[in-house]
Amino acid sequence: MNGARSLLATMVANGVTTVFANPGTSEMHFVAALDDATDVRAVLCLFEGVATGAADGYARVTGRPAATLLHLGPGLANGWANLHNARRARVPLLNVIGDHATYHARYDAPLQSDIAAVAGALDGPVFNPQRPEDVAAETARAIAGAYGPPARVATLVLPADVSWGEVATPPAHWPVAAPTSAPVPDEGLIHLAATRLRTTRSAIFLGSAATTQSLMDLAQRIGAASGAKVMVETFPTTMDRGAGVVQPERLIYLSEFAVAQLADLETLVLIGANEPVGFFAYPDVPSRLVGPDCHVVALAPPGVDAGAALAALVDQLDAPSAATPSGVAPEPPSGALTTASFAAAIAATMPEHAILSDESNTSGIHLYGATAFAAPHRLLTLTGGAIGFGLPVAVGAAIGSSSRVIALESDGSMMYTLQALWTMAREALDVTVVVLSNRRYAILDFERQRVGATGAGDASERLLALDRPTIDFCGLARAMGIPATLVATAHDLVDALRRSYATEGPSLIEVPLPSTF
Amino acid sequence: MNGARSLLATMVANGVTTVFANPGTSEMHFVAALDDATDVRAVLCLFEGVATGAADGYARVTGRPAATLLHLGPGLANGWANLHNARRARVPLLNVIGDHATYHARYDAPLQSDIAAVAGALDGPVFNPQRPEDVAAETARAIAGAYGPPARVATLVLPADVSWGEVATPPAHWPVAAPTSAPVPDEGLIHLAATRLRTTRSAIFLGSAATTQSLMDLAQRIGAASGAKVMVETFPTTMDRGAGVVQPERLIYLSEFAVAQLADLETLVLIGANEPVGFFAYPDVPSRLVGPDCHVVALAPPGVDAGAALAALVDQLDAPSAATPSGVAPEPPSGALTTASFAAAIAATMPEHAILSDESNTSGIHLYGATAFAAPHRLLTLTGGAIGFGLPVAVGAAIGSSSRVIALESDGSMMYTLQALWTMAREALDVTVVVLSNRRYAILDFERQRVGATGAGDASERLLALDRPTIDFCGLARAMGIPATLVATAHDLVDALRRSYATEGPSLIEVPLPSTF
Repeated sequence: MNGARSLLATMVANGVTTVFANPGTSEMHFVAALDDATDVRAVLCLFEGVATGAADGYARVTGRPAATLLHLGPGLANGWANLHNARRARVPLLNVIGDHATYHARYDAPLQSDIAAVAGALDGPVFNPQRPEDVAAETARAIAGAYGPPARVATLVLPADVSWGEVATPPAHWPVAAPTSAPVPDEGLIHLAATRLRTTRSAIFLGSAATTQSLMDLAQRIGAASGAKVMVETFPTTMDRGAGVVQPERLIYLSEFAVAQLADLETLVLIGANEPVGFFAYPDVPSRLVGPDCHVVALAPPGVDAGAALAALVDQLDAPSAATPSGVAPEPPSGALTTASFAAAIAATMPEHAILSDESNTSGIHLYGATAFAAPHRLLTLTGGAIGFGLPVAVGAAIGSSSRVIALESDGSMMYTLQALWTMAREALDVTVVVLSNRRYAILDFERQRVGATGAGDASERLLALDRPTIDFCGLARAMGIPATLVATAHDLVDALRRSYATEGPSLIEVPLPSTF
Repeated sequence: MNGARSLLATMVANGVTTVFANPGTSEMHFVAALDDATDVRAVLCLFEGVATGAADGYARVTGRPAATLLHLGPGLANGWANLHNARRARVPLLNVIGDHATYHARYDAPLQSDIAAVAGALDGPVFNPQRPEDVAAETARAIAGAYGPPARVATLVLPADVSWGEVATPPAHWPVAAPTSAPVPDEGLIHLAATRLRTTRSAIFLGSAATTQSLMDLAQRIGAASGAKVMVETFPTTMDRGAGVVQPERLIYLSEFAVAQLADLETLVLIGANEPVGFFAYPDVPSRLVGPDCHVVALAPPGVDAGAALAALVDQLDAPSAATPSGVAPEPPSGALTTASFAAAIAATMPEHAILSDESNTSGIHLYGATAFAAPHRLLTLTGGAIGFGLPVAVGAAIGSSSRVIALESDGSMMYTLQALWTMAREALDVTVVVLSNRRYAILDFERQRVGATGAGDASERLLALDRPTIDFCGLARAMGIPATLVATAHDLVDALRRSYATEGPSLIEVPLPSTF
């Protein structure tokens, strides 16, 4: 029984049975130990950003951590952007990084680097067992740290000699992380929130811990009883949506509009969310989005029990049941491919209980509206702003569920982590990838205007355009083992989507869009 | 004149005129400023690891820094692995990262992270101007820091408001970084080294600062006069090679063999290198590669003038000119594709003054020997062990030189930064990519045996194999605008290489190899 085997045994004892891996030399004992860990599913990813994003997606749909397996500092760095998204998604994640042997570190070998500094910037706890017999306890502590609350990216740095070294006396039972309950909100704050919801122009602002159908239903009751608006943060980790589900008003991404959206509020009650702020700063636009006179009641920020907060408000307000809004999904569209017909095609064809990994960015502008009354589904969004999350998260979501996963990608963002396609093919995942190709970093067309950096010359134009050469996304998919279809009309797209949903395994649909809309 | 423009003006004044960019919102003023900076070439990369590796490659062939342009913490992280390689290559590099506006940082917006911590782990200086009028001076300091000696990755974190803010009174002249000379070696050490080289079993150990033809020629004279072996580190940054060039003995990658190679030495004199250590630790193999009784003379470690050290030893030893070894390049091979026939094909066809970006890993086992008497060329290697360096470095080398660049890639390593192909196509770079597809992480077959993690079951086998599905590298290349050829015999490979060298612009050749050799 070596350190690697005790790590795996502790993971299994704690229900962490999925590993998204891109191993190297330092991780070979962990890899060898997998041969006997028949409860564990190890999934090879060809780039670490795929592994970390997949662990995020797995956690989003299961509520449980998956493990990564990364190779020293560069492996961590390659996976860091999607760990950043996972951190902002507040999902539990066990981030396992192999390191040089403890005694080798001092020699400053080529791959030596300060792993703790890079991992520490993810704001989760970092564990670094120095003896094989410490691995089990540190692993259990890391898993406890991952669960929180609030849930976090917990990192375990495993030196090679600690991995291969023998555990002198393995414990009779592997340590199990004790669950910690989220604290309930303060009574005084509940009273304050209830009073202000009833007596002022107010909104309930829901974050990722409060975007299940049942909690949003409570929020709606509170809204109906108090006259408060029910809103949701711009980029929730996972959100129930579709016909029969409550439809909170989504905070607009563009700060200029978000400020207007919140301008008349006297009270904002936070449930599962922090106070909303501008995604970026813009000249002459405030960073805080609420008005200066708005009273922000942090009733249940992340880590506090959002469900208890909503239940307490329902009690205080004696809020009766409220009818969910009704509406109909769009008809299957025909005609030209546009951002509107694309959104309608997704909404019209979506199978029940699908999972939508949405990195459609500017091309998805009509999506949220169009899918409001689509078949019930779950929406996963770009929580941390680090693009390249959509395909990896789809990998993890498909492995963590039995649902059809629809990964909506933009051409620019898809190119960050396109290696995920290979893992989809290898694992025969039920993922439909839809790539919206407008051949631009179109969001930057907006953004440069918003920050006042207009005046488009040749040099800047070449940094925003993705043509010359155009990218053949169907070709990329086929080269990695995924069948692909280029569509030319909205009708083609509807057909291709339906065929994809009816076929097991992954496929890709390339949707050319005009570069302006 | 805003901060971004003063940054660009200072870069130009210091000869930093190439930018490898993957910008986002925070960098839009820098992008806009490029429209008027007609001396600057900005190259779009679709993933940050391509941008940073390209800056490394540019510096390797020019000796001068290029700039990167990265987007906040996630952009830095995506580029970190190749910055790590650049750090280990000891090349000058100006790493520019856009950040949130200074006043926005406190709001913990989604993309907020501790950039300084992640950049600091690269061991170079980090600058973070807080006012537009400080940008020019901090940029000049960063460029000075990049040059060293020793050369380093210098990071400039530019907040958005510092970028867009007006510089009240631009300076009459932009600040220019004063060059700093490397210190010359200590006289006593020179005497000690000369004496020990003459009187003990000794070797001169050359690192990256001493691997030009002229300095290796001095080393050879010293070796001939003293009886010392002339050796070179396993992974030099850039090394002159081929017919007419001195042929130092390369330190073997495998520690077990390197220990044997160095075992009988009583003296090792370091010139442009640190003491060699094991790339990884292995059970029962020492981390230090020299024997316990070997006297290591750190005559010119990185940052000390290697040329002065060699010249001083030539003087002390009164070393006459020595003949360079002669030999012939292999004939163009025929027959099956093997690691040997591949190496012979490269050596037999290489055009003069080519640049070889070598990430062929296990498949390149015969390459160093085969190319010893090929046409004179420069070899660039994987200095930091973070795979995914070969294609990005080839991009930068092609932009920094007028030579044909040959990028030798393995299937596994190519998949980390394959987005580089698009930039090669867009910029019409004279790069020949040769991808060696053995459909395995073959190096890990070795490594797991070497660390004693044998016992290959299904789970571990699936983490080392790259089949199911196989990757169509020609398809990937064509999808990104690069013509591609799949070869079936050594003769085909020779033909394809010659055609590629005779054709302007990039091309890719896929070379299937057996998975064992």
